[in-house]
Amino acid sequence: MAPSAPTPAYRRLGVEERRRQLLEAALSLFAHRVPEDVSLDHVAEAAGVSRPLVYRYFPGGKQQLYEAALRSAAEELQHCFDEPCEGPLLRRLAHALDRYLAFVDQHDAGFQALLQGGSVVETSRTTAIVDGVRRTAAEHILSHLEVTEPGLRLRMTVRMWITAVEAASLIWLDEGKQPPHDELRDWLVEQFTAVLSVTAGRDPQTAALVRALADDA
Amino acid sequence: MAPSAPTPAYRRLGVEERRRQLLEAALSLFAHRVPEDVSLDHVAEAAGVSRPLVYRYFPGGKQQLYEAALRSAAEELQHCFDEPCEGPLLRRLAHALDRYLAFVDQHDAGFQALLQGGSVVETSRTTAIVDGVRRTAAEHILSHLEVTEPGLRLRMTVRMWITAVEAASLIWLDEGKQPPHDELRDWLVEQFTAVLSVTAGRDPQTAALVRALADDA
Repeated sequence: MAPSAPTPAYRRLGVEERRRQLLEAALSLFAHRVPEDVSLDHVAEAAGVSRPLVYRYFPGGKQQLYEAALRSAAEELQHCFDEPCEGPLLRRLAHALDRYLAFVDQHDAGFQALLQGGSVVETSRTTAIVDGVRRTAAEHILSHLEVTEPGLRLRMTVRMWITAVEAASLIWLDEGKQPPHDELRDWLVEQFTAVLSVTAGRDPQTAALVRALADDA
Repeated sequence: MAPSAPTPAYRRLGVEERRRQLLEAALSLFAHRVPEDVSLDHVAEAAGVSRPLVYRYFPGGKQQLYEAALRSAAEELQHCFDEPCEGPLLRRLAHALDRYLAFVDQHDAGFQALLQGGSVVETSRTTAIVDGVRRTAAEHILSHLEVTEPGLRLRMTVRMWITAVEAASLIWLDEGKQPPHDELRDWLVEQFTAVLSVTAGRDPQTAALVRALADDA
């Protein structure tokens, strides 16, 4: 078997590699332009291939390429939240925010187009992908806080803060990436502890967490 | 001239009244169902007219009716923010939030469908209407705070809080309108002062505001 294997194995790899190459070309275009300004011709040109070849890999055309690129970007973004469960909790949050803000920086126009809504390529599928990222972010935060059964008030607080971070990212891009990355990161961490403290006044579960965070710092 | 005026004047009113009647029927349907579940037949039935009559007034069909209903709802929502410039500032904010939460309560399914994104009727026009409401909310807050030239950090704080309020409203609807209206209102006001206080540590303009709010309470 061994001597005959290389050719099909090479071919399979070729298909996957080609697919990945087209996806990367699409990602870099969709990251820095609004979807309206990206055509399959641009993708073909960026990848150095013909337009029919792009269609062979993505018969659904631009919408399919966009969704595949978005799925790939969402995976990359979810990796930003991977943070070892060691060291002070707020420092872990700052590290994750560092990676998140670097991602926003690198995907500026695409990030804005996607989250500002009303995009031509927005569908219930793209919304589900974005919601999946938000859900993962909330799960990561709660798991670092070692909460397995978060009550309503704690869940709301975490989700409101995640939404506020998204809003901050969009304004940050609008404002020419001001305030600077490090200031924005620290400010967002401070807001996290502030809103948790407010909720602590209404919710014993969150109050216990706030005490743990204070001891941990 | 006077004796001949009534007839055309009556006709013009009739057209406007009919239009308003159709719009109100559409609004009450779009408020409590996702747009996918509202048809022109439903609107015609709710208004007690024929489907062709609905088309005569809204030749763009469901999308046009949806956008007109949304524009009308947005106007109503913007009226929620009208609050006289008297009395303690945080009490004014609580009053506006009371009206806002009542609006969310009355337009539950439509509010969710609109803001959760990926809706079949979402376009750049519907997004612009929603963004207009957010902008008006921010302007109202800054005008009550008597800030005419808000700096970046203060603007970001206000817009982040507005986004967090939206997120809270959606979770509130998801969770069967829990926590209760009054608790949610007070909690959101507390979050507003908490995030302003955090920003005050980084921004002299916001620090002055926080001092004024403390004196005002």
